[in-house]
Amino acid sequence: MSAKPVSVAETAPSPPVTMADIEAAAKAIAGKVENTPLRYSRTLSEITGAQVWIKFENLQFTASFKERGALNKLLSLSNSEKAAGVVAMSAGNHAQGVAYHASRLGIPSTIVMPKGTPFVKVEHTRNFGANVIIHGDTLADADAHARGLEKSQGLTFVHPFDDPHVIAGQGTIGLEIMDELADFDAVVVSVGGGGLSAGIATAIKSRRPAVAIYGVEPALYPSLSAELRGEEAKVGGATIAEGIAVKKVGRLTAQILRQLMEKVIVVEEDALERAVTLFVTVEKTVAEGAGAAGLAALLAEPELFRNRKVVVILSGGNIDTRLLASVLTRSLVREKRITSIRIIGNDQPGLLASVSTVIGDNGGNIIEVNHNRLALDVPAKGAEFDITIETRDARHTQEIIDALTSAGFPPRPHT
Amino acid sequence: MSAKPVSVAETAPSPPVTMADIEAAAKAIAGKVENTPLRYSRTLSEITGAQVWIKFENLQFTASFKERGALNKLLSLSNSEKAAGVVAMSAGNHAQGVAYHASRLGIPSTIVMPKGTPFVKVEHTRNFGANVIIHGDTLADADAHARGLEKSQGLTFVHPFDDPHVIAGQGTIGLEIMDELADFDAVVVSVGGGGLSAGIATAIKSRRPAVAIYGVEPALYPSLSAELRGEEAKVGGATIAEGIAVKKVGRLTAQILRQLMEKVIVVEEDALERAVTLFVTVEKTVAEGAGAAGLAALLAEPELFRNRKVVVILSGGNIDTRLLASVLTRSLVREKRITSIRIIGNDQPGLLASVSTVIGDNGGNIIEVNHNRLALDVPAKGAEFDITIETRDARHTQEIIDALTSAGFPPRPHT
Repeated sequence: MSAKPVSVAETAPSPPVTMADIEAAAKAIAGKVENTPLRYSRTLSEITGAQVWIKFENLQFTASFKERGALNKLLSLSNSEKAAGVVAMSAGNHAQGVAYHASRLGIPSTIVMPKGTPFVKVEHTRNFGANVIIHGDTLADADAHARGLEKSQGLTFVHPFDDPHVIAGQGTIGLEIMDELADFDAVVVSVGGGGLSAGIATAIKSRRPAVAIYGVEPALYPSLSAELRGEEAKVGGATIAEGIAVKKVGRLTAQILRQLMEKVIVVEEDALERAVTLFVTVEKTVAEGAGAAGLAALLAEPELFRNRKVVVILSGGNIDTRLLASVLTRSLVREKRITSIRIIGNDQPGLLASVSTVIGDNGGNIIEVNHNRLALDVPAKGAEFDITIETRDARHTQEIIDALTSAGFPPRPHT
Repeated sequence: MSAKPVSVAETAPSPPVTMADIEAAAKAIAGKVENTPLRYSRTLSEITGAQVWIKFENLQFTASFKERGALNKLLSLSNSEKAAGVVAMSAGNHAQGVAYHASRLGIPSTIVMPKGTPFVKVEHTRNFGANVIIHGDTLADADAHARGLEKSQGLTFVHPFDDPHVIAGQGTIGLEIMDELADFDAVVVSVGGGGLSAGIATAIKSRRPAVAIYGVEPALYPSLSAELRGEEAKVGGATIAEGIAVKKVGRLTAQILRQLMEKVIVVEEDALERAVTLFVTVEKTVAEGAGAAGLAALLAEPELFRNRKVVVILSGGNIDTRLLASVLTRSLVREKRITSIRIIGNDQPGLLASVSTVIGDNGGNIIEVNHNRLALDVPAKGAEFDITIETRDARHTQEIIDALTSAGFPPRPHT
């Protein structure tokens, strides 16, 4: 704000977080958060063409990395701030991280969550000992309410990402990776507000500047991409990566990531769903949508990572049970292991039996039959079935369709 | 077979597997199978009332413990036996264990699988390099075919459980547990043919005779329970624990388990499903039904394990994707987070809108609506809907039912 001329060096702002901050955070939180496993995955390496190591932050006690930053922030408070308590706004993992460690430390915590927050997350946060307030139709409304409580009740606001102590806490993941892995080319990490990626980038670029840091955003919420272009982000829509669906990255995090991030990779919902499914079927581990974004980026841009040694941050595992079941079922449809076919014929006894026999004889498994009696594209005395079958793969599905056609029951295209 | 009188000591058969065999197996397979993590679970300890450590055998490369025994057996073969190749019969994890390590060692492998083997298991086994033959309607038929190939083609038969080298290989899990955990009271392990439990029991009872070994069987396949009573087992039915659904335990394994096993715990399907769900929701890990049997036993008999230090073997994670999705969805129904209610009213425009508004205003989420036009318990001009709603919990479901009743749409009981 001074009027005197400044040199170029002085215009470059000093980094909001340094390696020393991250090393201090690592010392502070040691033993209270997990030093999570880092494992090479042979099968994910084969599938993606890269050499893939996974950092399993879903194995934290509250199943996400958020504990690191939350705990480091809580430990930085003065005794009087601790006694007064903290407030945070979060519909998810940050809430659980703050609630759990605040309770453990005897710090009163209030968490504001917007209406519509998944039931299971509200429950978990309450069970960790927080005072949960459901307020506001949007995250912005809930945030404003939390900021109001900060002032009216003298609480300390624990920001989910745009705070040097939070960023330094998340950066401890970078230290753990470098302690364990002597040599790697890239880190791929999901970006919401940017706390996780900014912390990891600061740690890794300080010691190993040649390692490239890639951020990953859902296509519906490309906030960092827009920020780096100096544009307003166009965001919105239902993503399975709700943990990183933010409208705007942080001020501090943007400053860090502009300097240190190689590239932002934008991934579609389809890649996120495939990544969640691969973690379950290959790695036998549970990732939430945001947690699977790193793997989704490897699926989306295989050429960028081919043969490179890549560390993927599996940042969290708190996926709603029904959503996970739905993603897994949809994966079978995508692989054509579950297919719905439509049969039109005469509405007389035996039609379904005949069709079922052909399907069964060819090794297909019928899992659902719907009889469409009101369809107008069928003669009044005709019958229309939608039959959902399970098969080995797309080739097997085609064999069954061919067999039905030969037997006089040609399946119609069915959307 | 000799006619001379024998002393009592001589009538007790010598153990088929010794600690020395297991130590030799550990040396032989070291570095080629994973020394899997053993982790304490705070949340599963809270839920079950025991102090629970989990041994994650689902993190083996082929996602089950079966590699240990299969590899130890393969390494015991002579050069000419290796050159001739091996044959095994398995619809599951044993097939993958044999196929993977045989290929790695350059040993030709033939795997016979019965018709109806899940597609994904056939594919995996082929991908690991085995010659897969689909033969027979039952496991017994497939087994007979494999035994035929053993003779006609001069192959070595790799038994899934009743072989000293296989049992010794599985026993290496016991060594790893004792290396890592200085003090524990019990091990809980699923029992199919008994290879896993016999190996672990031999290892642990040799060094720590005070530790109790509990076996777990699905209620539909209580083969060991029957064997220990000297009865023929009554088995059959569709269990999600198909990996341990065997008709008869082994001769060698029965001999070992009769000596060393504290008790066999029989678990119902409901407990198996709850255990699979808890592994996903709490531990963020994927267990197949047989792999979750140990945890199911803790849920089924909490008093037996209360406050004791218990190691649960999570023996495998190869669950069919569709089955996993189904188990997860059913868990929501069990917890009354998903409920189907039936509404009967006049068949006029607006009924569904009115009912939906009441549900939505009370925080319920409608996920499916079925209109039953053919139900005879409804007046000809009436309408009947089955509405599937998602709620926070059973209490919330009741609130919505009460609100619908107050609004003049009393839900009918619905089976």
